[in-house]
Amino acid sequence: MTATREHLSQAIINAGRFLYGRGWSPATSSNYSARLTSAEVLLTVSGKHKGELGMDDLLAVDMAGQSLEEGKTPSAETLLHTQLYRWKPEIGAVLHTHSVNATVLSRLCLSDSLVFADYELQKAFRGITTHESQVEVPVFDNDQDIVRLAARVQPWLDSHPDCVGYLIRGHGLYTWGQGMQDTLRQIEAFEFLFECELKMRALQAR
Amino acid sequence: MTATREHLSQAIINAGRFLYGRGWSPATSSNYSARLTSAEVLLTVSGKHKGELGMDDLLAVDMAGQSLEEGKTPSAETLLHTQLYRWKPEIGAVLHTHSVNATVLSRLCLSDSLVFADYELQKAFRGITTHESQVEVPVFDNDQDIVRLAARVQPWLDSHPDCVGYLIRGHGLYTWGQGMQDTLRQIEAFEFLFECELKMRALQAR
Amino acid sequence: MTATREHLSQAIINAGRFLYGRGWSPATSSNYSARLTSAEVLLTVSGKHKGELGMDDLLAVDMAGQSLEEGKTPSAETLLHTQLYRWKPEIGAVLHTHSVNATVLSRLCLSDSLVFADYELQKAFRGITTHESQVEVPVFDNDQDIVRLAARVQPWLDSHPDCVGYLIRGHGLYTWGQGMQDTLRQIEAFEFLFECELKMRALQAR
Amino acid sequence: MTATREHLSQAIINAGRFLYGRGWSPATSSNYSARLTSAEVLLTVSGKHKGELGMDDLLAVDMAGQSLEEGKTPSAETLLHTQLYRWKPEIGAVLHTHSVNATVLSRLCLSDSLVFADYELQKAFRGITTHESQVEVPVFDNDQDIVRLAARVQPWLDSHPDCVGYLIRGHGLYTWGQGMQDTLRQIEAFEFLFECELKMRALQAR
Repeated sequence: MTATREHLSQAIINAGRFLYGRGWSPATSSNYSARLTSAEVLLTVSGKHKGELGMDDLLAVDMAGQSLEEGKTPSAETLLHTQLYRWKPEIGAVLHTHSVNATVLSRLCLSDSLVFADYELQKAFRGITTHESQVEVPVFDNDQDIVRLAARVQPWLDSHPDCVGYLIRGHGLYTWGQGMQDTLRQIEAFEFLFECELKMRALQAR
Repeated sequence: MTATREHLSQAIINAGRFLYGRGWSPATSSNYSARLTSAEVLLTVSGKHKGELGMDDLLAVDMAGQSLEEGKTPSAETLLHTQLYRWKPEIGAVLHTHSVNATVLSRLCLSDSLVFADYELQKAFRGITTHESQVEVPVFDNDQDIVRLAARVQPWLDSHPDCVGYLIRGHGLYTWGQGMQDTLRQIEAFEFLFECELKMRALQAR
Repeated sequence: MTATREHLSQAIINAGRFLYGRGWSPATSSNYSARLTSAEVLLTVSGKHKGELGMDDLLAVDMAGQSLEEGKTPSAETLLHTQLYRWKPEIGAVLHTHSVNATVLSRLCLSDSLVFADYELQKAFRGITTHESQVEVPVFDNDQDIVRLAARVQPWLDSHPDCVGYLIRGHGLYTWGQGMQDTLRQIEAFEFLFECELKMRALQAR
Repeated sequence: MTATREHLSQAIINAGRFLYGRGWSPATSSNYSARLTSAEVLLTVSGKHKGELGMDDLLAVDMAGQSLEEGKTPSAETLLHTQLYRWKPEIGAVLHTHSVNATVLSRLCLSDSLVFADYELQKAFRGITTHESQVEVPVFDNDQDIVRLAARVQPWLDSHPDCVGYLIRGHGLYTWGQGMQDTLRQIEAFEFLFECELKMRALQAR
């Protein structure tokens, strides 16, 4: 194992422990990845307990999402990861989580996107410097056909170069960053905003 | 103690620590079991703190729910466990938990069952491969007469061979799997869905 | 220090760590006690962090609530503890906690008592064997004059020998048991019921 | 490093671990400080993970908020800290946190202040001895221009010498005390009251 792979594996394992501990990756849901090279990505294999990942629960895939390791099956959603690494060369990590609040909010949102505004915490996202900005998060309908789902995500990415994450309805969040630290910070910020938004909605109608 | 019994005892003790820690087995509620043989089940004794179970807090019962160990009283709900092991030979573990959300949702549900649909996490249940399926969870009225309660559960099991769990109103959840790992994954999935469903209901009416 | 005092001190310190950890004794609120003899009670001193109690943060008081240790001031609410030990000789521990849910529910309850019914967890209270019973919990208005407050509590205790706990409005819960273990089980059961009740109320009106 | 600086640094690092653990300082939000001398304040540098602060993540500033250490950038909000130390010589610590509940409640509050009344826990604030008092917490509109924001805070402080904390809308809480212990107790009390208030509002309209 190269030093890079060992380092990135450990970063993914640690991320899993954190995200599972927060309740954001329950019941073997979620998948995580990190860029190995310009042409390869390290990704979690399918169906593992995310709080108890080991070195063997990761595999390398190419940018088309094909396994580079015999006997290991990548997550069904691999293409949603590689799509992002192909979109922007500076992306070094992608986290897909599956929290109650992301699930509920994405289902309650009947339109194509959520907009967050006037939250100081928006500044936790890359490129945002004031609460007076707006963070738009698209919500795509869930689909077990990942090729078809990726084909719906791509036009949004192409037309929104500053996009910081997206939701799949009833399914969860995708976000990314230059490294694992950045990406975890964005997860925390998203989960904070999701919880705020649900509480606001519950109380605003009164 | 046989190696199997020791192994299964430890699995139950660990499950208890986890489930108590999550708040799903408060105040000595809940009971857990694992299959020892085709004719015997290992089960928690009555009234213990589920986060602090010891090897002595378990006893073997036969498939009629009778204690096989002098001086140890099985949980009053033993029959609900043995009923499941008799129903399907592949069942290796049964967990009954008692969370706030299971209690509240089962009380709010005035009909005979809850239906979960369009949640990606339904795939955490054995045999489910798409969010486009429906997971139906029956809700039985609570009853201190366990023989009578079991007699109400049996026809449902007989007519729903794919059933993955059921609720007792104001009382909690029963779910099962081939091993403890599977069963814990199903508990996590159920609790996730219960929480989603309560949040959805709170917000959908607005 | 006698063996009894050392043992009870440790039980109180451990209870504090647990209760603070759960968020039920925030910001130096709450007070805890255990019976030393038929005439003396061991009690937390005023104003300490309940998750970090030490052996010195406890003092002995007589049944009139007077300090038996020079230089140590018992909690202002001492009389509410000693009142209970005088009421029933079998009471060995009293816990007063201060959770968000106890605070909110006691404020929302405009009548003189709350009634819990049809919850299986009612069986966690001493003497309750079925969910078909009713657990009535009186709610007393808060009062900084503890002599006056105790005088309002006493008639209720006298007329309800099976009382398992009471609430002070906007202030918290008092419950008791033969030992610390029993009393902690009752706290968990009360907090479970408070959370259920608040969730039921939020959703039932829909 | 002087003994005082080392001691205060450790107190800030520990406070960060606690506050991050509670979810009150997510995604590198928040900033904390402690008074070094009558003219200098020790403060967190900008943009660090608050649960993983190290000795190097702190810097000394003067009472005008200017860095006294080459190469280290103080938090953008430094002036809101030094303003408080200049206001009252007895203030020894200032904590700014960023919880979901503080964010939501400050946004839902359309008037200039929140008032807490009839909560026993108000007594956790310095100078409050009864639940029959009122704790008024001003809510200032968020502003990326900290000089302008501080200029709006100052008149309130001048006219409310007993003020125990304030909110910035959609942004979080500022509170203070003689030492770190005091200030953490006030944070716990505020967060308790925020959660109570949100739950009360959700249920009172029914």
